Amino acid sequence: MEEIVKVAVDAMGGDNAPGEIVKGAAKALRENDNIYIYLVGQKDVIEKELESYEYPKERIEIVDAPDVIETAEPPVMAIRRKKESSMVIALKLVKDKVADAFVSAGSSGAILVGGQLIIGKAKGVKRAPLAPLIPTEKGASLLIDCGANVDARAEHLVQFAKMGSVYMENVVGINHPRVAIVNIGAEEEKGNALVKETYPMLKSLEDINFVGSIEARDIPRGDADVIVCEAFAGNVILKLYEGVGSVMLSVIKQGLLSSLRAKIGALLIKPALKKTLKKFDSSQYGGAPLLGLKGLVVKAHGSSTATEIANAIRQCIEFKQQNINNKITEALGDE
Amino acid sequence: MEEIVKVAVDAMGGDNAPGEIVKGAAKALRENDNIYIYLVGQKDVIEKELESYEYPKERIEIVDAPDVIETAEPPVMAIRRKKESSMVIALKLVKDKVADAFVSAGSSGAILVGGQLIIGKAKGVKRAPLAPLIPTEKGASLLIDCGANVDARAEHLVQFAKMGSVYMENVVGINHPRVAIVNIGAEEEKGNALVKETYPMLKSLEDINFVGSIEARDIPRGDADVIVCEAFAGNVILKLYEGVGSVMLSVIKQGLLSSLRAKIGALLIKPALKKTLKKFDSSQYGGAPLLGLKGLVVKAHGSSTATEIANAIRQCIEFKQQNINNKITEALGDE
Repeated sequence: MEEIVKVAVDAMGGDNAPGEIVKGAAKALRENDNIYIYLVGQKDVIEKELESYEYPKERIEIVDAPDVIETAEPPVMAIRRKKESSMVIALKLVKDKVADAFVSAGSSGAILVGGQLIIGKAKGVKRAPLAPLIPTEKGASLLIDCGANVDARAEHLVQFAKMGSVYMENVVGINHPRVAIVNIGAEEEKGNALVKETYPMLKSLEDINFVGSIEARDIPRGDADVIVCEAFAGNVILKLYEGVGSVMLSVIKQGLLSSLRAKIGALLIKPALKKTLKKFDSSQYGGAPLLGLKGLVVKAHGSSTATEIANAIRQCIEFKQQNINNKITEALGDE
Repeated sequence: MEEIVKVAVDAMGGDNAPGEIVKGAAKALRENDNIYIYLVGQKDVIEKELESYEYPKERIEIVDAPDVIETAEPPVMAIRRKKESSMVIALKLVKDKVADAFVSAGSSGAILVGGQLIIGKAKGVKRAPLAPLIPTEKGASLLIDCGANVDARAEHLVQFAKMGSVYMENVVGINHPRVAIVNIGAEEEKGNALVKETYPMLKSLEDINFVGSIEARDIPRGDADVIVCEAFAGNVILKLYEGVGSVMLSVIKQGLLSSLRAKIGALLIKPALKKTLKKFDSSQYGGAPLLGLKGLVVKAHGSSTATEIANAIRQCIEFKQQNINNKITEALGDE
């Protein structure tokens, strides 16, 4: 019999909450037999939303949480003060081992703070990085760290490299994932003080496949599987990826509407274009794990729809089955 | 009578040197009556290349330079040792006021080092930033700094904001350019230590139009005219822009070849698509100025063709006529 993975879902977090979150939870339950969901949030609101969907009722439980943490709230204060918020209550379910994982599309800052304060870091972990998968020409790479851990030190980046390797090897299934550090040139002597300090440390590690520096230009080409950087650079990379992609598509769309000839052409290319662009759409990956905690925390994009929420929930199965947290502790253990 | 702008062009720098550089110089001379060019490099090679083109011979002079600085050479050593290189000799023409400006598609590192060591920084300038124009949905923004000045301090970023404002106002012609600092959130309290220190300093300046933080996602939308950041982040932004753009186009092209229907559509949309994508092509801007020196230094992209070289040369006219260096010194003078 397959092991059941229990996921605490923050029904109130995100631009499309609670509607799309509840819909995504129902979808995840229908599609995966081995998931049990705690849907955490305002009980009456959730119950009403659930009425619209078909789902296996024996694998869902609503946990009432009257409060909601808004995106604009200062994270530390929100987590400390709003004890009755959906986020705090859901995180506590993971802390108390009632649930295995926590999924939320709510405030990134609050998720990062809450994950570390309530669930806590695993043994040996200095910082918990947020590590989304980003689409590349060849598939996907793990960008680690994109969280709120700005001003990281070299020892943190070394841990990110190890954790990222464990994730890509075990969850994504890539043998000996290529690990690279984000830099402004390919040569070892290039970079800022942090990169110059970290580079030789990564080079000396025997348990990861370090391939050197990666320039930002080569990230979308998929030249490495694990892209190590501190969170400020990671955040810039993640968001610029999104920004350039969406502006280019809008520029292309304008071009397709600029003449009758182009409009006819646009109708003909639409299905093929849609299919290939899907390859380059990060929403297929569902959410970004916050690695190195005592339980699993997955941050879904703020604008997530039901499909992305369902993907984020499904992602927890692999994470639990592969026992990633233990493997991370082992990988860091040799320090 | 219009003032003549004298430009020292490094004929040997760049992936397509000397062919495209010489061709670009001839083009710039044909198209602009008020330009005089010193074409610096191996005399016999340049003479042979020039034979293929029509150009006004009275406005060009070949300056022999037997040596070439290669892209892979460590910049400081290359500039110090290769006294007979095209780059060093061309930079000296600017230092000695023989030429007003220097244009090269060669090694970025060597151009940055050479500009500062040979031409020297203008009075009051703490660091000379490399500031390319990047395309946006609405036009173009100045990204300052993308150079080799990593690990910048807050006082440097403040100067970048002032220099960038002068450039956008006078060269690009934008009234009260909106200045923003690259950050990982819109709120004032967000950011790494450098941004947190710089933000209030920028906010207190009365002579620039500071609009606050900009997230990387909003850069391609053109939400600010002057994008201030330290060079590591700037370099990541510049190169990721290029990388995401080219990979997306290649993904789209694959899609257009995936079925007969799409192939026919592709033929129909081609002219319109080409026209709109041109709007989003950074090569139209020619080169990036290295601001804050005693003379003008323009870095063209390593892969520049004749058109980009001609654009980079033409760019020097506006810079000289608007007397940007003096305006920068004035803007920094109130410190």
